[in-house]
Amino acid sequence: MRFKFPLIAISLEITMIVLFQLFVHYDTEQKPNSNKSTNVDFELYPLFQDVHVMIFVGFGFLMTFLKKYGFSSVGINLLIASLGLQWGTLVQGLLHTHGNKIHVGIKSMINADFSTATVLISFGAVLGKISPIQMLIMAIIEITVFAGNEHLVVEIFEASDVGASMTIHAFGAYFGLAVAGVLYRPGLRRGHDNEESVYHSDLFAMIGTLFLWMFWPSFNSAIADPGEKQYKAIINTYFSLAACVLAAYAFSSLVEHRGKLDMVHIQNATLAGGVAVGTCADMDINPYGSMIIGSIAGMVSVLGFKFLTPFFATTLRIQDTCGVHNLHGLPGLIGGLAGIVAVAMGASDTSTVAMQAAALGTSVGTALVGGLITGLILRIPIWGQPSDQNCYDDSVYWESPVFHHLRSSKPKSNIKEANGTKQIDPESVASSLKCLILEQFPENQ
Amino acid sequence: MRFKFPLIAISLEITMIVLFQLFVHYDTEQKPNSNKSTNVDFELYPLFQDVHVMIFVGFGFLMTFLKKYGFSSVGINLLIASLGLQWGTLVQGLLHTHGNKIHVGIKSMINADFSTATVLISFGAVLGKISPIQMLIMAIIEITVFAGNEHLVVEIFEASDVGASMTIHAFGAYFGLAVAGVLYRPGLRRGHDNEESVYHSDLFAMIGTLFLWMFWPSFNSAIADPGEKQYKAIINTYFSLAACVLAAYAFSSLVEHRGKLDMVHIQNATLAGGVAVGTCADMDINPYGSMIIGSIAGMVSVLGFKFLTPFFATTLRIQDTCGVHNLHGLPGLIGGLAGIVAVAMGASDTSTVAMQAAALGTSVGTALVGGLITGLILRIPIWGQPSDQNCYDDSVYWESPVFHHLRSSKPKSNIKEANGTKQIDPESVASSLKCLILEQFPENQ
Amino acid sequence: MRFKFPLIAISLEITMIVLFQLFVHYDTEQKPNSNKSTNVDFELYPLFQDVHVMIFVGFGFLMTFLKKYGFSSVGINLLIASLGLQWGTLVQGLLHTHGNKIHVGIKSMINADFSTATVLISFGAVLGKISPIQMLIMAIIEITVFAGNEHLVVEIFEASDVGASMTIHAFGAYFGLAVAGVLYRPGLRRGHDNEESVYHSDLFAMIGTLFLWMFWPSFNSAIADPGEKQYKAIINTYFSLAACVLAAYAFSSLVEHRGKLDMVHIQNATLAGGVAVGTCADMDINPYGSMIIGSIAGMVSVLGFKFLTPFFATTLRIQDTCGVHNLHGLPGLIGGLAGIVAVAMGASDTSTVAMQAAALGTSVGTALVGGLITGLILRIPIWGQPSDQNCYDDSVYWESPVFHHLRSSKPKSNIKEANGTKQIDPESVASSLKCLILEQFPENQ
Repeated sequence: MRFKFPLIAISLEITMIVLFQLFVHYDTEQKPNSNKSTNVDFELYPLFQDVHVMIFVGFGFLMTFLKKYGFSSVGINLLIASLGLQWGTLVQGLLHTHGNKIHVGIKSMINADFSTATVLISFGAVLGKISPIQMLIMAIIEITVFAGNEHLVVEIFEASDVGASMTIHAFGAYFGLAVAGVLYRPGLRRGHDNEESVYHSDLFAMIGTLFLWMFWPSFNSAIADPGEKQYKAIINTYFSLAACVLAAYAFSSLVEHRGKLDMVHIQNATLAGGVAVGTCADMDINPYGSMIIGSIAGMVSVLGFKFLTPFFATTLRIQDTCGVHNLHGLPGLIGGLAGIVAVAMGASDTSTVAMQAAALGTSVGTALVGGLITGLILRIPIWGQPSDQNCYDDSVYWESPVFHHLRSSKPKSNIKEANGTKQIDPESVASSLKCLILEQFPENQ
Repeated sequence: MRFKFPLIAISLEITMIVLFQLFVHYDTEQKPNSNKSTNVDFELYPLFQDVHVMIFVGFGFLMTFLKKYGFSSVGINLLIASLGLQWGTLVQGLLHTHGNKIHVGIKSMINADFSTATVLISFGAVLGKISPIQMLIMAIIEITVFAGNEHLVVEIFEASDVGASMTIHAFGAYFGLAVAGVLYRPGLRRGHDNEESVYHSDLFAMIGTLFLWMFWPSFNSAIADPGEKQYKAIINTYFSLAACVLAAYAFSSLVEHRGKLDMVHIQNATLAGGVAVGTCADMDINPYGSMIIGSIAGMVSVLGFKFLTPFFATTLRIQDTCGVHNLHGLPGLIGGLAGIVAVAMGASDTSTVAMQAAALGTSVGTALVGGLITGLILRIPIWGQPSDQNCYDDSVYWESPVFHHLRSSKPKSNIKEANGTKQIDPESVASSLKCLILEQFPENQ
Repeated sequence: MRFKFPLIAISLEITMIVLFQLFVHYDTEQKPNSNKSTNVDFELYPLFQDVHVMIFVGFGFLMTFLKKYGFSSVGINLLIASLGLQWGTLVQGLLHTHGNKIHVGIKSMINADFSTATVLISFGAVLGKISPIQMLIMAIIEITVFAGNEHLVVEIFEASDVGASMTIHAFGAYFGLAVAGVLYRPGLRRGHDNEESVYHSDLFAMIGTLFLWMFWPSFNSAIADPGEKQYKAIINTYFSLAACVLAAYAFSSLVEHRGKLDMVHIQNATLAGGVAVGTCADMDINPYGSMIIGSIAGMVSVLGFKFLTPFFATTLRIQDTCGVHNLHGLPGLIGGLAGIVAVAMGASDTSTVAMQAAALGTSVGTALVGGLITGLILRIPIWGQPSDQNCYDDSVYWESPVFHHLRSSKPKSNIKEANGTKQIDPESVASSLKCLILEQFPENQ
């Protein structure tokens, strides 16, 4: 990291500034009656802020469940989302305007935040196993591919995907899984000591879960047509998520040892309803339709964590750290299929079954191809990858007073001789203890 | 829990879906000029989201103060609020439309979230002592009773209670206290080792406190009449809460050992001003009037924690885990009385003193009767109640890597003989240490 | 603290209530067509809530990074912001109306929240070294001086400072540094054992960082002119912050040992872009202009933490606990200078270079003089100041079950004789361990 990371980060930022200088202008400039039209956009500002919270707090804290990887989860999330939203503004804008001036406003900010979501989802699949430099590279490539696929789905196919079940969730998941497959680490096939949570890291992750859960109606409605469709997207997502929670809790208890609940399921599967209702959120599917979609997604997501993740890790040789296949992949597919069914049943008049199916197919296909190529680029051994032993460990990339104690000396004999009798030396025991505890519970210091 | 919990949860969700299929439709369908009217509602969406955050993050994290009960606090909160908002939509809707089609929109979502608040308040009184199954049952019963009482107060009495001091806060508190009284556990009369906080669990609880505190103006104004009344509800709540903080800090320091502040008071009593100003929040009480109400509520709440909670636990045999009587019960009563005084002084032209008093009386009365009956149902020994020893302990209902270590073996002798001299065996000490620490500080692993 | 603190707090609150009774009325009363005009204001309510979250969760949690000072950080933050918003409403109102009736509404609530930000910034400079009583006094004085300076800058100079880079950030930082200089503690010149973070306290601090970062566009646009200017303030802040993150990460890695990232930089310097773009946020500086300002601010902030903070602590004898000079002071100056440059380049038609320079000068000057005087008042030894040894330690001002264990007895010999052989006594070791661990890791209990 010594110079590579700062140089790459600075170069990227300078490139962004130059490209923004060439292409990007305020939205207000293009409109004659700017006051009127900005007000329409300004109504979206609270929804933008909800999405913004999902991207930075939601995704960031959701990944803090690992006991020694909280700094990277929330910190690298902030880094790549900040890069991604600048790059997303550019590529989405250039595709949309065919290379002309890009006009930014609340709506483009929402779309830019959306584009970063794909990378953050993929980040979950490779969490703990790649370097900050690799993440910067992945962000640039993935957002480019995403913008291309989204353009295809929305502009060419004219398919419906208001909550982006296909173009963001399925796309991000399968892109990440492809990368994780190429970067497979045989040394971690039996797991890693650091790949587990501690009590409070699981609580930090719940902060992420809840802010994603609560603001998902804004995610699925932010770019919907104003009026009735936007309204329906909010209502459908609200009820889908509520039903999903019941299903996730029920199946978590059903598949677990002695009927207990599993924190991994609660943190993730409760959100599957938001993903799965995304494609048809603004359609006329009725609240009970959303609840059926949400229930199925919650159930499938838990079953995925229980049965598919181990299968992926061993047989398919894909190590999916956060289980993004269960939270975004499978529910994204359910969302795409639900969209096809809804269109077939006449819930939408703006899309066709064929176009919905094409959208789902290209989203998954583009993701897999894009992910494989990205994985090959990231395998080049010049990006500061952590060794197997250093995986899932913040101290590799983070300097902090917290980690200084870990470098202190090993315990020595704690028995001293005094007056001919052996006694435990309290001072020495205290120091040994601190050292031992810090080795085993680094989250304390 | 093995099969009972999942079967009950799945049955409840299927019932919800069937009832929604029969009764629930989009709000937009009933209105001819839907675009216009949804826009009025859409202005409430940011307030809905604030309330949503209070319900899921506010109430959820406020209860994470217990050192070993954070998963259940935030997790069961999510479960019962998700069930509750579906059931609340149904019972409130059926009462309102007299059994006809229910039309859901932003306003009904706010009311559905409100209805769950009653159960979450009652949850605080029995926290750590009842099972997830019991919570599901309590949610169904309590929301039904709440909807009945609210219908009586709002539609029949036509009383004012915009921030629901009486119908939600006093109701939820006294319902929960009645349940806690029926479920009294003599075995816990001298407290429980787990019934205390650790440093970071108190900080997690402050996340809940702050999100409740900040968004309370939205809670008290969300269903107010648009325009001047809604505006006043925001302003009054803002100043009531600010004054309440000063009073809570002052009295916390005054009643505590050597003038220190008590974290329990800061987490809870600072919110009493939001509860107490609820009934008259949209009335013409002036900002200084709100500040007087807030100050009194902050003071009374601290005194309640100091003197009433021990009295309740010993003499009345009601164990109130979170002290909901001091945060919701007493301030709810103050709110009801403040409403009576405000109406008597002419601050409102839509209600009478008699109707306000009737509303307060029936809210408390219905809550006590409903709580007693619910308590008796929950006493039936088939709901997977935790034993006294297992109270306030997540590991009873949660599976997590976190708890695996707790089942590891006990420490053995750590002294080994080498070359005829006794030495401490570092390996063995390290393993013993880990085991010992995990027993005493389970929050680490 | 025994009686002084509660008496001062109660007296202040009673004073506030009396002054509110005399001066403060609802905004709606002054307007004939109240419905119309409140709607304009009501559009600002979501922005107010974002600012509210920044003040209470953002500032509060940002300061929880210290391992033993989380209760005070988030708790005293709540106390002084609650007092400050009442006092800010009064002094800003009285200055604005020249002593006549004050009309409160959403806009005055935003301004009141803003006025508290100055004290919370100064709080960061003296964090851990002063008592709650001292903070109450500082809040009253600083907000008065702030309101005077702001009146000068906005009403007399008619300078632009929409995001308050000068009047809040530079002002708050230099005020706090002046206080910290006067209250210099030679006993802490070599640091303090408590002045460090633990792993989870750094994660709590990231909650503060992220909520500040995400909602900063609302902070910089909340009091902007509606329409185009407000729109630009949102967009410029969004891009400035994104660019700032890249710069902060790059320079953190560049200046640190072996290219690692430093959590202190990530928590603070990533926000410098929001501060620095404040003055010219609503001007026509183009998105790429904001990104240049943000990048420079991120870089300067990291360099400040690395090189200036040690220089301040040793040579200038100013101990700046949170490094507010690097987060608010320097970026505030950059903001003021950027404003001068932007006005000189014609990006604004409402202000002049001279007036911008005058605004910057008086903001810093007033802050230094006000801070010096406040520091002298706070040095009077009657305000319950903590001793050097008790600095950065919650247990001085907070009562909590958490701290009880710390007062338990010291470890004794853990070896017992049984059957003539020396053995370690497990019971005794367990108790000694608990005691030792609690001494060294008080955050556990």
